[in-house]
Amino acid sequence: MAEYFAGIPTVVYEGPESDNPLAFKHYDAEAVVAGKTMKDHLRFAASYWHCMKGAGADPFGVGTREMPWLEAGDAMTAARQTMDAMFEFIGKIGVPYWCFHDRDIAPELDDLGASNKALDEIVDQAESLQQATGVKLLWGTACLFIHPRFMAGAGTSPSADVFAHGAAQVKKAMEVTHRLGGEGYVFWGGREGYDTLLNTDLRRETENMARLLRLAVDYKKEIGFTGQFYIEPKPKEPTTHQYDFDAQSCHAFLLQHGLEKDFKLNIEANHATLAGHSFHHDLEYAAINGLLGSIDANRGDLLIGWDTDQFPTNLYDTAMAMLTLLRAGGFTTGGLNFDAKVRRQSTEPVDLVYAHIGGMDAFARGLKIAAAIIADGKIDGLVKERYVGWENAIGKKIESGQATMAELEAHALKTNVMRAPVGRQELLENLLNEYL
Amino acid sequence: MAEYFAGIPTVVYEGPESDNPLAFKHYDAEAVVAGKTMKDHLRFAASYWHCMKGAGADPFGVGTREMPWLEAGDAMTAARQTMDAMFEFIGKIGVPYWCFHDRDIAPELDDLGASNKALDEIVDQAESLQQATGVKLLWGTACLFIHPRFMAGAGTSPSADVFAHGAAQVKKAMEVTHRLGGEGYVFWGGREGYDTLLNTDLRRETENMARLLRLAVDYKKEIGFTGQFYIEPKPKEPTTHQYDFDAQSCHAFLLQHGLEKDFKLNIEANHATLAGHSFHHDLEYAAINGLLGSIDANRGDLLIGWDTDQFPTNLYDTAMAMLTLLRAGGFTTGGLNFDAKVRRQSTEPVDLVYAHIGGMDAFARGLKIAAAIIADGKIDGLVKERYVGWENAIGKKIESGQATMAELEAHALKTNVMRAPVGRQELLENLLNEYL
Amino acid sequence: MAEYFAGIPTVVYEGPESDNPLAFKHYDAEAVVAGKTMKDHLRFAASYWHCMKGAGADPFGVGTREMPWLEAGDAMTAARQTMDAMFEFIGKIGVPYWCFHDRDIAPELDDLGASNKALDEIVDQAESLQQATGVKLLWGTACLFIHPRFMAGAGTSPSADVFAHGAAQVKKAMEVTHRLGGEGYVFWGGREGYDTLLNTDLRRETENMARLLRLAVDYKKEIGFTGQFYIEPKPKEPTTHQYDFDAQSCHAFLLQHGLEKDFKLNIEANHATLAGHSFHHDLEYAAINGLLGSIDANRGDLLIGWDTDQFPTNLYDTAMAMLTLLRAGGFTTGGLNFDAKVRRQSTEPVDLVYAHIGGMDAFARGLKIAAAIIADGKIDGLVKERYVGWENAIGKKIESGQATMAELEAHALKTNVMRAPVGRQELLENLLNEYL
Amino acid sequence: MAEYFAGIPTVVYEGPESDNPLAFKHYDAEAVVAGKTMKDHLRFAASYWHCMKGAGADPFGVGTREMPWLEAGDAMTAARQTMDAMFEFIGKIGVPYWCFHDRDIAPELDDLGASNKALDEIVDQAESLQQATGVKLLWGTACLFIHPRFMAGAGTSPSADVFAHGAAQVKKAMEVTHRLGGEGYVFWGGREGYDTLLNTDLRRETENMARLLRLAVDYKKEIGFTGQFYIEPKPKEPTTHQYDFDAQSCHAFLLQHGLEKDFKLNIEANHATLAGHSFHHDLEYAAINGLLGSIDANRGDLLIGWDTDQFPTNLYDTAMAMLTLLRAGGFTTGGLNFDAKVRRQSTEPVDLVYAHIGGMDAFARGLKIAAAIIADGKIDGLVKERYVGWENAIGKKIESGQATMAELEAHALKTNVMRAPVGRQELLENLLNEYL
Ligand SMILES: [Co+2]
Ligand SMILES: [Co+2]
Ligand SMILES: [Co+2]
Ligand SMILES: [Co+2]
Ligand SMILES: [Co+2]
Ligand SMILES: [Co+2]
Ligand SMILES: [Co+2]
Ligand SMILES: [Co+2]
Repeated sequence: MAEYFAGIPTVVYEGPESDNPLAFKHYDAEAVVAGKTMKDHLRFAASYWHCMKGAGADPFGVGTREMPWLEAGDAMTAARQTMDAMFEFIGKIGVPYWCFHDRDIAPELDDLGASNKALDEIVDQAESLQQATGVKLLWGTACLFIHPRFMAGAGTSPSADVFAHGAAQVKKAMEVTHRLGGEGYVFWGGREGYDTLLNTDLRRETENMARLLRLAVDYKKEIGFTGQFYIEPKPKEPTTHQYDFDAQSCHAFLLQHGLEKDFKLNIEANHATLAGHSFHHDLEYAAINGLLGSIDANRGDLLIGWDTDQFPTNLYDTAMAMLTLLRAGGFTTGGLNFDAKVRRQSTEPVDLVYAHIGGMDAFARGLKIAAAIIADGKIDGLVKERYVGWENAIGKKIESGQATMAELEAHALKTNVMRAPVGRQELLENLLNEYL
Repeated sequence: MAEYFAGIPTVVYEGPESDNPLAFKHYDAEAVVAGKTMKDHLRFAASYWHCMKGAGADPFGVGTREMPWLEAGDAMTAARQTMDAMFEFIGKIGVPYWCFHDRDIAPELDDLGASNKALDEIVDQAESLQQATGVKLLWGTACLFIHPRFMAGAGTSPSADVFAHGAAQVKKAMEVTHRLGGEGYVFWGGREGYDTLLNTDLRRETENMARLLRLAVDYKKEIGFTGQFYIEPKPKEPTTHQYDFDAQSCHAFLLQHGLEKDFKLNIEANHATLAGHSFHHDLEYAAINGLLGSIDANRGDLLIGWDTDQFPTNLYDTAMAMLTLLRAGGFTTGGLNFDAKVRRQSTEPVDLVYAHIGGMDAFARGLKIAAAIIADGKIDGLVKERYVGWENAIGKKIESGQATMAELEAHALKTNVMRAPVGRQELLENLLNEYL
Repeated sequence: MAEYFAGIPTVVYEGPESDNPLAFKHYDAEAVVAGKTMKDHLRFAASYWHCMKGAGADPFGVGTREMPWLEAGDAMTAARQTMDAMFEFIGKIGVPYWCFHDRDIAPELDDLGASNKALDEIVDQAESLQQATGVKLLWGTACLFIHPRFMAGAGTSPSADVFAHGAAQVKKAMEVTHRLGGEGYVFWGGREGYDTLLNTDLRRETENMARLLRLAVDYKKEIGFTGQFYIEPKPKEPTTHQYDFDAQSCHAFLLQHGLEKDFKLNIEANHATLAGHSFHHDLEYAAINGLLGSIDANRGDLLIGWDTDQFPTNLYDTAMAMLTLLRAGGFTTGGLNFDAKVRRQSTEPVDLVYAHIGGMDAFARGLKIAAAIIADGKIDGLVKERYVGWENAIGKKIESGQATMAELEAHALKTNVMRAPVGRQELLENLLNEYL
Repeated sequence: MAEYFAGIPTVVYEGPESDNPLAFKHYDAEAVVAGKTMKDHLRFAASYWHCMKGAGADPFGVGTREMPWLEAGDAMTAARQTMDAMFEFIGKIGVPYWCFHDRDIAPELDDLGASNKALDEIVDQAESLQQATGVKLLWGTACLFIHPRFMAGAGTSPSADVFAHGAAQVKKAMEVTHRLGGEGYVFWGGREGYDTLLNTDLRRETENMARLLRLAVDYKKEIGFTGQFYIEPKPKEPTTHQYDFDAQSCHAFLLQHGLEKDFKLNIEANHATLAGHSFHHDLEYAAINGLLGSIDANRGDLLIGWDTDQFPTNLYDTAMAMLTLLRAGGFTTGGLNFDAKVRRQSTEPVDLVYAHIGGMDAFARGLKIAAAIIADGKIDGLVKERYVGWENAIGKKIESGQATMAELEAHALKTNVMRAPVGRQELLENLLNEYL
């Protein structure tokens, strides 16, 4: 078999003192932190689309990356080579999971039947590679955004035929995800939105989106797929407004359509920030509402208004993410999928390796920081102290739902409270820096 | 009685050809458009806080406006003068409604009891002025954000005593709104949010917020107040993150806490844009979900990252707003409240008049444009044509909930749809310009 | 010759009452406004790249447009067909100018020599078409951003070989622009910037950029090309930071390198707004500094953080642009080039026609509005009144440079000025709306 | 003398292992890093306005902080108490410098003469306190933005009388800065900009601004003040557009008016980010152009669109700032002034102390990181390698200004370069994390 990452060794943990750029300094897969191995906490996944298919094109330039696996006389040969390259890469970087879109692993052919057949063939190959390597599928999904037929959405298309085609792709993608033992299935509605309200029937489109999801829920039961469904919020790009704007918008949609038990969220860092939230915010919102399913681990550039999908290296972000995750009990079906791409000038295969090392080390450090914060209890102590004013009699009465407006007014009339508890933000920020 | 807007005549309609800057060119209160008078369509309100209290201070400078009504030896005399000035202004500008916060019309005194007493006194005065003039109250509200006790919120405060104080203010503000015949009551949660997640118990805070709203719903029934409750979304400012982020976030909150029948939304243009949406978007979202209650009519500057609360003059915005409103059946309890302030360099009383003329004319033109668009049907026709693909057999089956995944796949396999309907955005934008 | 816009008539002026979506309602080429024909004021150009080459691909999807001219067995045949299609389109839409990049009109071949030869061949064809139709070239430019060799810039590349290649392309593009009688030549430095300061030598890169521009200035004289050079500012996208950030940044660069006499600016609406300015601001800044050369007429979406390059339809924007332009004396070498693309769902050839009609009508209305504002003098009068405080003795002394600090202090000590002139923003905004 | 920070000890260095929130963990004033003490590298200053005068008011609420020094029967007593409190605070936090605005240290009285007299009195007190403590003045400045007379600017006011008043304040502020041995003088033009172009004469305003600065340059020589002049860029807030937009805009202004030898820049982190740049970018731009004078050390929140002036705690930012500063040779006249305020919920005097400890430790860590990066040379090595392509013959010829277009074309024709050097952003980001 061709070697695509020739000369690049399997990446191993060498510790913080190592000078080797191709070693982990912090991610030690079997090391135990807060009662579990790093590997089990972090459940890293590599994404097929960015690792193997994203060539570095942008709106002003063509691809730049060296990607020998894509060079072949016919599409199926290229697809097979690419799957081999993916598993070679996974083996070298040492992540336990991968993720894919249907149309990334197998080509879109002349019609749906032919495409389905091609997909089956590549899934055969993937199944063998999974068995041979022990690598597992974190989640699968259908690409409902590249083809012109989906230019106005799939579940929200103005064409019922397109809706049907999208549904058929979801059906097939669920089947192959099931077959590959996928632990989840993601819906990212990149074209489910609008470019202008002038041509859009907002009610019809969002109701049809709910119909597609209900069909998927039914079909999941029909085929016995027990993986978790996720919606991945994103506010805009490619469309001007996307229906799955952010975590709370998705929550509204799920509640409105009675789907809140069937879906969790796949929170992507860069999508949260495009919606005007911190990554931490959307994670925390999801966590307290039982919606924290999986994470697309990347970072955006807050001075840039589009999805840059950079590899996560900011330790503040990874620490806060892991803090929320640890407090929420950790992943069950989800994991940290690197929905991240190397920069356009990072053209060599080794750059993909550097990128993953950086992301994995950054989350490993985030995990250690979060575990230390929890173990230490200083920050929690300050928060508890801030809310101590709810432990009095009126506080308990309010929170148990037994106070009336008249009682509260009577309390206020005699209490005449003039100040609120001090916030201590600077002290908390200083403490946080001590853990870095 | 002192005259505060001396030399300024009652503003009347003179038509587009008038050269008088103190006349309406488009707002003709009793003129009928689309079956109703302009006055009944638009239901304009003047806001007490901006008209009478906002002196033009900003984070880098003190107030600049000439506001003789605020000059007095004691707070209550100033408050009485201010109420007189407000009704003088309303009389001259000719809006049928006004809106207020408790602490704007009467001073915050040493304790809640004293403040309540002061409020009652001013409400007596307001009641007389309403009777004398026929001006009505669109909505009232409580100011739960200026006083230091609310620095960390009211319903979401870390102190139960502060919660109780906030509840007591809401109780009293509801009572006086009821007494003044208010057609609604607004909750704007400017401090209901957080500055840093490091010191915040997100779940507790949002659950307590729901508790406050439930108490208000119960109390409303208790006192027989039949006005409409509104939540006013805003994403941030003053806090870093506010819980009532946007229309859809509020929807999530209402659904989650079983409050969706008791509240509608008061959509503010500048708040929608701070959340990353067009004003039109948040109106449309609210409309299709039965949540469109009232509107805070202003505009932001999309190149500026804070709430500029400028008077609305952009005809594209007012036309789109009125289009959504007309299609949704128009206001019932709500109206167009100018939550807008004159610029800091607009220091004279006449500037307040110019500002309201501009806003009222801009919405009057918006109304006429929207009515013409609907009457004409060209835009609607293009939208209908775009969705015609849902009128076929598979479309009807999907929308009636009877299609299965297997059927959809079978349809897709034989249909092999390659394109979606054309969007025609440019043509629609050209048509829109024809109505301006 | 094949007809690519079959069934689409030559677009003519039919006036505001026309119901024909394929007619101009406002752009009447030979109608005289403010002493000149609309055609001579507006000097519209169609851009080759968006009209003929941009298929509607975005970072999440492939092209969608019907573009039969691109379908051919070999690259040169396609290039010839495309040039024919361009002139067919220009003939139908009736713009007097076009603009191009070297690599858009002729293919990039195996080496520079071959590419140059291909370019010459297509330029022959363009020259014939120009002669046959009377259409002229507003400006030419070199594409120094698509090819991987330019991934880190051309003039600012870390490789001298790439710099040389870029210079050679500029040389050739200048030659063919000269040959085609181009009235200008544009430098847009889309890759002249950085993705991260961690790998960037900022001083070296910006100095090398100046070197490239100086070489071009010298070469211009050498070949006798008398067209105007323009820099086109853009703050970011594709790179994280671009050196030609905005009008004032370019001004700094030109002044620092002694190039301010050799360059004017080509201001693009969407680039100004990405830099945090209004389109009007960058135009006005350029105008008062003698830098207003040409305009890339489009619009962005201020809620979107990337370059959407939409067709200009906002009458406020076109009116303000034309106001600045008229006051600055109008275009000499420059014009209004539609650096704008149809939306991805506007897939048919007719959509390109609708788009240009909308843009041309919007600027024609902007011209009429601006001319009316100037003729009327009301707005100018209010501005003059605002600055009347400079007509006194101390004002004249300051502006003639004869006042000293001591005199100013003495004046201030005795004057004790407490207020500044009123701003009248709302009144001015109301007046502006009267012209729409 | 009253003690305002009672119970708070003088803050000392205790090292990273200390558990004391009122000790430095990293800032060890006399410790030597890269050949100089930390104190001499960092030259920290406390700002009078935020420490002593900013009460925590925001557009939606009044002040919240406990500030006993402001409580007094008359303005001058309060001013004297406040100056005492400032030096008490400086003594406890151990910064070697302070900074002030004229109107912060002494009240604005009925006329300029009276205000000047009050200022002299407080400057007497400050002079004594400086002598007694050894604390020095980093820079002084005049407040030309709070008073209504400056609502439309000072140097750019539409009133010559206001210009004169502003000039007189600058004159006096320069004099007292000189008398207090100030090492610099800052111009921040918060109101030097516009709210709307509709009422603005852009050319006149910017030319008058230059006149004011020239007057100041002349007066500086006249009185023998040798401190450094700085302009502090900020893009907007309070005005919609400010003339000193960012570092490069200020550079353009200085070059255009021949002032580039007389001014350096005072770069504020939060102002750079409001302009769409990283803090690092504006520092680096200033550094390579000889304009890096002083730093207003704070941080913004990139998800927030206004100046939050938070204390700097982000180690990435402080490390990059110190890297640029060290490479530029360090401060001469400038320093790190905390133009930062405690959060509105940080109401106690101790919060001001926590805030400064956090900021000082963050920059001390940044200094150590930057020194390590330079000493190590790994990052520099990768950058050098990236630009190695300029060391060849054609590179040297280009950079020495001897290449011609024809030579470059000849080189390109034979070289046929297809790729640019790899960017290695991910590897560089990984390396950076190793220093944290
Ligand atoms: Co993702
Ligand atoms: Co993404
Ligand atoms: Co409002
Ligand atoms: Co507002
Ligand atoms: Co352009
Ligand atoms: Co553009
Ligand atoms: Co500052
Ligand atoms: Co600031």
